[in-house]
Amino acid sequence: MSAQAIQDSYPPAFAHCYGCGANNQHGHHLKSYLVGNETVARFTPDLKYSGGVPDHVYGGMIASLLDCHGTASAAAYAYQKEGRQIGDGREPVRFVTASLKVDFKRPTPLGVELVVRGMLRSLDGRKAWIDLVLTAGELTCATGEMLAIRLPEPVDA
Amino acid sequence: MSAQAIQDSYPPAFAHCYGCGANNQHGHHLKSYLVGNETVARFTPDLKYSGGVPDHVYGGMIASLLDCHGTASAAAYAYQKEGRQIGDGREPVRFVTASLKVDFKRPTPLGVELVVRGMLRSLDGRKAWIDLVLTAGELTCATGEMLAIRLPEPVDA
Repeated sequence: MSAQAIQDSYPPAFAHCYGCGANNQHGHHLKSYLVGNETVARFTPDLKYSGGVPDHVYGGMIASLLDCHGTASAAAYAYQKEGRQIGDGREPVRFVTASLKVDFKRPTPLGVELVVRGMLRSLDGRKAWIDLVLTAGELTCATGEMLAIRLPEPVDA
Repeated sequence: MSAQAIQDSYPPAFAHCYGCGANNQHGHHLKSYLVGNETVARFTPDLKYSGGVPDHVYGGMIASLLDCHGTASAAAYAYQKEGRQIGDGREPVRFVTASLKVDFKRPTPLGVELVVRGMLRSLDGRKAWIDLVLTAGELTCATGEMLAIRLPEPVDA
């Protein structure tokens, strides 16, 4: 597993995301890690993040988790492709979302740890396609696919 | 404009959504209205909902707004198709998201009112396809498409 969360490698000027930015004091601080050939994040939403029906997570939270984990995954795979360690002190890598599709497979239970995984489909220049899966225990609750775009360097402004 | 917000017609047992449920005391309480042949919701995210770069809205919030507005739109168009008024006291209509795709066209400014519109593409049985647009002033910041599925009646359990 990468020693550092991918989000903790983001340049400070780009680390304010409510979903995952280390510099957003109010946010969720999602942390994603590279584990072998996939990325993994774990998150337990607070009970207030109910969907229409109590005891299930609302769709916006699910999309948020996939979104933040997806761009983190894209950065992780760019580091990997370049033979670099995440947060190696060189020019940081930061992707943003161009497109995100979420398929809600079943209601996502609230009050349990959710696991989000990201798999690289392709990485070509500044474009990364990431496949995403959100599970609760053995249940696959949502899947996603993201097109992420790498910000031009330098991103440490 | 529909006199009642679409979300305020949701049956109480299905009105707990963090994004738009009247019965979620912590949530955003997004309110969507049917206005002629489109649906409209207006929302100004708090400044804490920053994206990676300050002064822009984080992607999860944008997805959340489109998600909640999309299912509300589906319900509104189902009422319309049946010649009913929203919240007419008869069996309430409630849709949930099967799939949501969001295209982020440009950074969405934070600190201004966002307007989300929903247009019906098709409504066939329990399936509704909704096209979505999120604007900030004159700027189109995101577009979306949703497949929403109507919950079987009765939904007022």
